[in-house]
Amino acid sequence: MINPPLRAAYEAAQSRLAQLAKPAGALGQLESTAAWLAACQGVCPPRPLEHVRAVVLAGDHGISHFGVSAYPRQVTAAMVRAFVAGKASASVLARQHGVALRVLDLGVDDDLEEVPPEVSAYHVRRSSGLIDCEDALSANDVRRALRVGERIAAVEISRGADLLILGDLGIGNTTPAAALVAATFGVGADEVTGRGTGLDDEHLAHKTRVIGVALSRTKLRIANPVERLAALGSADLAAGVGFLIRAARAGVPILLDGLVSLAELAVAEDLEPGVVAWCAAGHRSPEPAQQLALDKLGLSPLLDLGLRLGEGSGALAAVPLLRSAALLIRETALLADLASS
Amino acid sequence: MINPPLRAAYEAAQSRLAQLAKPAGALGQLESTAAWLAACQGVCPPRPLEHVRAVVLAGDHGISHFGVSAYPRQVTAAMVRAFVAGKASASVLARQHGVALRVLDLGVDDDLEEVPPEVSAYHVRRSSGLIDCEDALSANDVRRALRVGERIAAVEISRGADLLILGDLGIGNTTPAAALVAATFGVGADEVTGRGTGLDDEHLAHKTRVIGVALSRTKLRIANPVERLAALGSADLAAGVGFLIRAARAGVPILLDGLVSLAELAVAEDLEPGVVAWCAAGHRSPEPAQQLALDKLGLSPLLDLGLRLGEGSGALAAVPLLRSAALLIRETALLADLASS
Repeated sequence: MINPPLRAAYEAAQSRLAQLAKPAGALGQLESTAAWLAACQGVCPPRPLEHVRAVVLAGDHGISHFGVSAYPRQVTAAMVRAFVAGKASASVLARQHGVALRVLDLGVDDDLEEVPPEVSAYHVRRSSGLIDCEDALSANDVRRALRVGERIAAVEISRGADLLILGDLGIGNTTPAAALVAATFGVGADEVTGRGTGLDDEHLAHKTRVIGVALSRTKLRIANPVERLAALGSADLAAGVGFLIRAARAGVPILLDGLVSLAELAVAEDLEPGVVAWCAAGHRSPEPAQQLALDKLGLSPLLDLGLRLGEGSGALAAVPLLRSAALLIRETALLADLASS
Repeated sequence: MINPPLRAAYEAAQSRLAQLAKPAGALGQLESTAAWLAACQGVCPPRPLEHVRAVVLAGDHGISHFGVSAYPRQVTAAMVRAFVAGKASASVLARQHGVALRVLDLGVDDDLEEVPPEVSAYHVRRSSGLIDCEDALSANDVRRALRVGERIAAVEISRGADLLILGDLGIGNTTPAAALVAATFGVGADEVTGRGTGLDDEHLAHKTRVIGVALSRTKLRIANPVERLAALGSADLAAGVGFLIRAARAGVPILLDGLVSLAELAVAEDLEPGVVAWCAAGHRSPEPAQQLALDKLGLSPLLDLGLRLGEGSGALAAVPLLRSAALLIRETALLADLASS
């Protein structure tokens, strides 16, 4: 069980919000966000968020050979290179908001020549098993990926992160992510399967079948979250789980992105209850599995812009809103100041 | 008829968006926003938004003596002072985003002593008529307020604005704003009346009656937008109409806030068709009249955070998203770059 954010700071924030020179509740979701930040930091008002750090965990997936994505798997490695060049959409957003961003190869199925070696410093394996007929990972892969994910978070925290963002990159990754959500919450493939980055009806039906077969193949083992990752996950997804657990244990708040980060949280919360209390949701994804996970975990995203990119983009776009929340509770006049002026 | 944004730049933006290294449509509403900015600037890709300027038009309202707001009218002047001190919530957001912000007294019912005189340089009159039994403004007041609003926009444009924000401040202002929306679109008081900054059920029923009586008192004259402003508006609302018309005529894009700015746009569009094409919506307000006006005018807000503050806060909070849209279409890699790397 992970320690929760500090209740006393949450309550102090609620009390301070009620004393600001504005109608009660008039800042809407920015008020609950401000109180959550205060609780995570253990202080009211919360400090401004000056050191936001994002990692984008990249990996390929066995099933991406078989029509579950609108794009070929070579795109994963090409996008890693775009990140290294600072030209991915998420790179643009990170630069805009002063967020330190690293792309990391956990399971990319490419040699990644000419890419700086630190990108692959945490590489666990190339791609993953075909989840409709074999396990995604060995038990050893899962343990290693969880540990690696924890280490990635520890490094970001040691560099001074006051907010962490967990992004994803990998053709086909909404298939294992949706499968993990379905397995975690005990729902069927038809309730979790979405169009990813743009599947047509025929390929959507195929993707639903793949997830359904994977779920029935593994149904006797997936009650255990570690076995669930082995059966249905991937190196990048398992590392995301470890990342979230380590961040929450260290008391560093996390801003979630789309389906993949929600799938990672769903498993993390099962492994170590209490992680979710350290998480805010940046963006509502069009993926049904993300909406299901949000509801089950009690999270309300700040944005709903129809992004279906991954890369942490929905979280990065929401960073200014978290900063607004912290600044508004710090700097808005108190009613008492108004009366005396 | 106001000239529309440049179609060719809009189409060039759509074409460039299709060539970026991301799945088709994956940036959701940020893509349509980028194309709109390109069209407004007449160039693709659009320039970054570096000179965003906001004005907050303040005024009191005759009906605010009579239970249509949860707050006393003295709050309007107190909040003008909070703006001057840089301590309103909107001041905090403007500082965060590097937005130049001015509060201007168009119709505040207070001497505003100790407030710098430039705040009242555009003052039209103190408060407005009781719209359920008399006109809000004389015909002369309306002409003057429209002209003053145009001048305020002209000054902001001359200072180099590449995006304008129109905010509002004034206890009771959702009552005339909702009445203007109802009159513009020919709907009843019950379809437009909301809780403003926090009315209980009893006061909501009273506010609905006030708006209903005002609408029936004036129904033979409100087809004309200038007479509508005289019958139901206020100096600050009429100035907002002039502001929007001038900005659109000058080809400067505008980011709208909540109900008051939508009411101003509804009237402006009637006076000079084509204003709406220069507007984006920052935030979906909980006020039913704002949602009605958004639907009628074909606008989709970027944010939906439950803000009910006014002050331009919903627009200010959305500024980073407009900037993201411009930066993403400028700086994301092209697919052609990926293939060659």
